[in-house]
Amino acid sequence: MNITEKILAKASGKDEVSPGDTVDANIDVAMSHDGTSPPTIKVFEKLSDKVWDPEKIVLVFDHNVPANTMGSAEFQQVVRDFIKKQNITNHYIQGEGICHQVLPEKGHVIPSSVIVGADSHTCTYGAFGAFSTGLGATDLAMVYATGKTWFNVPESLKINVEGTLQENVYSKDLILRIIKELGSYGATYKSLEFHGNTIDNLSVDARLTMTNMVIECGAKNGIMIPNKQTEEYLQKRGIKDYTITYPDKDAEYEKIYDFDADELVPQVACPHNVDNVKDIDKVEGTTINQAVLGSCTNGRYEDLEQAARVLEGNTVHEEVQLLIFPASRKIYQDAIDTGLISIFNKSNAIICNPGCGPCLGAHMGVMTDDMTCISTTNRNFLGRMGSAKSYVYLSNPAVVVASAIKGEITDPSNI
Amino acid sequence: MNITEKILAKASGKDEVSPGDTVDANIDVAMSHDGTSPPTIKVFEKLSDKVWDPEKIVLVFDHNVPANTMGSAEFQQVVRDFIKKQNITNHYIQGEGICHQVLPEKGHVIPSSVIVGADSHTCTYGAFGAFSTGLGATDLAMVYATGKTWFNVPESLKINVEGTLQENVYSKDLILRIIKELGSYGATYKSLEFHGNTIDNLSVDARLTMTNMVIECGAKNGIMIPNKQTEEYLQKRGIKDYTITYPDKDAEYEKIYDFDADELVPQVACPHNVDNVKDIDKVEGTTINQAVLGSCTNGRYEDLEQAARVLEGNTVHEEVQLLIFPASRKIYQDAIDTGLISIFNKSNAIICNPGCGPCLGAHMGVMTDDMTCISTTNRNFLGRMGSAKSYVYLSNPAVVVASAIKGEITDPSNI
Repeated sequence: MNITEKILAKASGKDEVSPGDTVDANIDVAMSHDGTSPPTIKVFEKLSDKVWDPEKIVLVFDHNVPANTMGSAEFQQVVRDFIKKQNITNHYIQGEGICHQVLPEKGHVIPSSVIVGADSHTCTYGAFGAFSTGLGATDLAMVYATGKTWFNVPESLKINVEGTLQENVYSKDLILRIIKELGSYGATYKSLEFHGNTIDNLSVDARLTMTNMVIECGAKNGIMIPNKQTEEYLQKRGIKDYTITYPDKDAEYEKIYDFDADELVPQVACPHNVDNVKDIDKVEGTTINQAVLGSCTNGRYEDLEQAARVLEGNTVHEEVQLLIFPASRKIYQDAIDTGLISIFNKSNAIICNPGCGPCLGAHMGVMTDDMTCISTTNRNFLGRMGSAKSYVYLSNPAVVVASAIKGEITDPSNI
Repeated sequence: MNITEKILAKASGKDEVSPGDTVDANIDVAMSHDGTSPPTIKVFEKLSDKVWDPEKIVLVFDHNVPANTMGSAEFQQVVRDFIKKQNITNHYIQGEGICHQVLPEKGHVIPSSVIVGADSHTCTYGAFGAFSTGLGATDLAMVYATGKTWFNVPESLKINVEGTLQENVYSKDLILRIIKELGSYGATYKSLEFHGNTIDNLSVDARLTMTNMVIECGAKNGIMIPNKQTEEYLQKRGIKDYTITYPDKDAEYEKIYDFDADELVPQVACPHNVDNVKDIDKVEGTTINQAVLGSCTNGRYEDLEQAARVLEGNTVHEEVQLLIFPASRKIYQDAIDTGLISIFNKSNAIICNPGCGPCLGAHMGVMTDDMTCISTTNRNFLGRMGSAKSYVYLSNPAVVVASAIKGEITDPSNI
């Protein structure tokens, strides 16, 4: 069996599973945020009076923090009431940051565990060798009530990446390149299992960027074997009691893909699909009005550091607004302590509170007609950040800030 | 003549004016922000093709930054187009902060000048001995076209304040106490001229808090003679060529009020009127869900410092969200440099980008039914921060954060 098959077999009490099998899996951690908790709670309350395990549910506010409308505020009050009523102990509702950063940071992500969440980017935690995937709020309600959910065991694609990423090329470029290859629907309900020396050498932050985006080619989950850096990350959080799941030598994959990191240049996903990926030289010079650094994809410390390296001593183009959202309170603090926030502020960036920001067009950077944004976020769908006549390009953090400086899409090596 | 009369006489080319006279005054600086510029521009474009003086108009984005809706984004694009078309050189549209902080900070506020702005708190600049007042967008359009507007010369009230403010009592308490005395309509279309040793000794930040709020008792303007600190503030910005206007010895005032600073305790303006002011002991224990530190009233460096002093080593109550909005990019930077932002972040406050925040209920802290906020802002009207069934209390920064720590309205001396 491959990694995902082994985790799902164990979680459902089976010795062996194969793609297509339906399994009833025990859930280790279930998560929802301010946007998806209220509908989950609404359905849950039709099913049960009491959650299956108040310590296994994690609730986070990140999508609309601080509340942008009365409706958002009302949604948050519903969650606060639920926390009290159900004695939920793991809640991060005071601006701690984006769920997909807060869960690992606070020690809720353990290798080989099964994590579900009412957010499509719940696949992020696969960077730690966990099986994690997004559920609809209704399905999650069932998990809140019973601690179980069913899965079809997915087919798996093996993604091998070998080589060394060049200057100004990051794991974001790698995952965009992979999505370009597979296509937006190319891995629908499949597992992506990442291997190769490039993956082995990536930092935790860089790995999270990749597993975060597997949903953008339709994947059920993405998964990596925890490397040295990942184990250090876990140990820092006092997590020692875990097992790492390795694929069997005869593990089966529907297909194997090989990628070469050495040859990769900065990649840009062009409007309006994430698989519409081009080498940066094909889009350089495109005028932008807005630049966004942040999100569950690229709002981590290393992302901020990569951006600061390009931004230091430069200023944002006067016709651009550069919005920066550290992914968590901890990252914000680290970035204050090391001077990154000062670099950003002195460059005329707008530094916002940790959270999802304008990624999904709810607030804090909504665009009107004819505006163009370059963003480190994960989706560039039609109307994603506001108007259906606005345009979102996706790239790595260095490209985003280089473009903010020049007022047009720019390769950071040209700064 | 008193100060306001002398400034208006000079601005309208007259030797003498009296209350009730209508004068046609030359404007030194005219200001509008992202909320009021588009309607101003719309009317302006019916009047003229060219602004009277592109260097005397100051445009600021502060109310909805980053844009919270497509409508806000569209408004901002209208302003950007206007800036280009009219060659407006003084624009602060990249998150520099709140207009009423940015204008003094950037050197646009000169003693004895006449400043108008399409924002009711334009009265703020009176702390520098300028005549400044808010205009409707339509009236401001006329200023953009001609550089002039008419005023009725207001009656003036002389406000004498003597004594020393006690610990945890600030100029916010003083202005709330004055508004309580005068009533919300007590100074309608009148000038408040502040005197006394308390006023003479106040810092620039503390003075701005007071003149900012004179509109809350209906005043046309509030004015102070620049003191030593004010002159130092101006010199730091290279402003040396100005005159200070003093009242004549026989200046006339409609009424004279005397206030005693020594006896003042922290004041709280209770829902739903700014003149519904009580000593803090009358409202202590009121449960709150939200606390806001910021705004053109109390988002300045000293305000943050007062708050940090109380907050250091404490954490925000788990059922409260404390939202902090430095009033400008410069204040944010200063507060990073001196460690205030770290104190806030470590206390679990949510630190947002400089701007107006939820003061007017547009975004970043909108409240739903049954929520209660204590805030350093300037208005607590029914529905001001969202639902008509929510409640806003106004206080000084120390009271706001003390209350955030305890989860109920709290005198900082009890922390």
